[in-house]
Amino acid sequence: MIMSLVAKTPEPPYYAVIFTSRHADEVEGYTAMSARMKELAAQQPGYLGIESARDEAGITVSYWKDLQSIRVWKAHVEHLQAQETGREKWYSTFKVRIARVERDYGFSRDGLE
Amino acid sequence: MIMSLVAKTPEPPYYAVIFTSRHADEVEGYTAMSARMKELAAQQPGYLGIESARDEAGITVSYWKDLQSIRVWKAHVEHLQAQETGREKWYSTFKVRIARVERDYGFSRDGLE
Repeated sequence: MIMSLVAKTPEPPYYAVIFTSRHADEVEGYTAMSARMKELAAQQPGYLGIESARDEAGITVSYWKDLQSIRVWKAHVEHLQAQETGREKWYSTFKVRIARVERDYGFSRDGLE
Repeated sequence: MIMSLVAKTPEPPYYAVIFTSRHADEVEGYTAMSARMKELAAQQPGYLGIESARDEAGITVSYWKDLQSIRVWKAHVEHLQAQETGREKWYSTFKVRIARVERDYGFSRDGLE
């Protein structure tokens, strides 16, 4: 599956979950979980897209139709398990911010995104 | 200067500017500009913090006290120059989203962040 790096979200307003993290030393199992969570998130009602990048810090921003969609996804049983393992093993620190996107604009040189 | 990877923002509400980009082939001058923009942003009124990560995609999230602070920073003369060169040279595509952070929570294993 070719994923666009810049999510194709609809006209605002919509919601963003900004997840910023730093990995712990122990990252066994992380890559598989991360791929599975992206796959699973994309199947949830109200999902609009996801963007992520990682070097020293990791930033994943997922976009959602409304707060209720975010609540349902947070409480998904497989996601709960991933959150728990993240706290126990993969992350030394993270922060989650729930934000209402009020305006957006973009630029594309080649019209592909 | 040691920068925290996870920005130490105050209690919500505050604002986030989510900047997601893909680089063009031409990135000469980008690293210096990026460092200068981070330094300059941190001097602006209403600046609360910044987080960034880059692999295939780049995501930079800057945090601000209010929309007016974001407007003033967007119109800063050096920042305008960087935005123009970004469109002309460094980015093949980007998207900017202005969002109101309504809630946040975090986790830290070692209490450092």
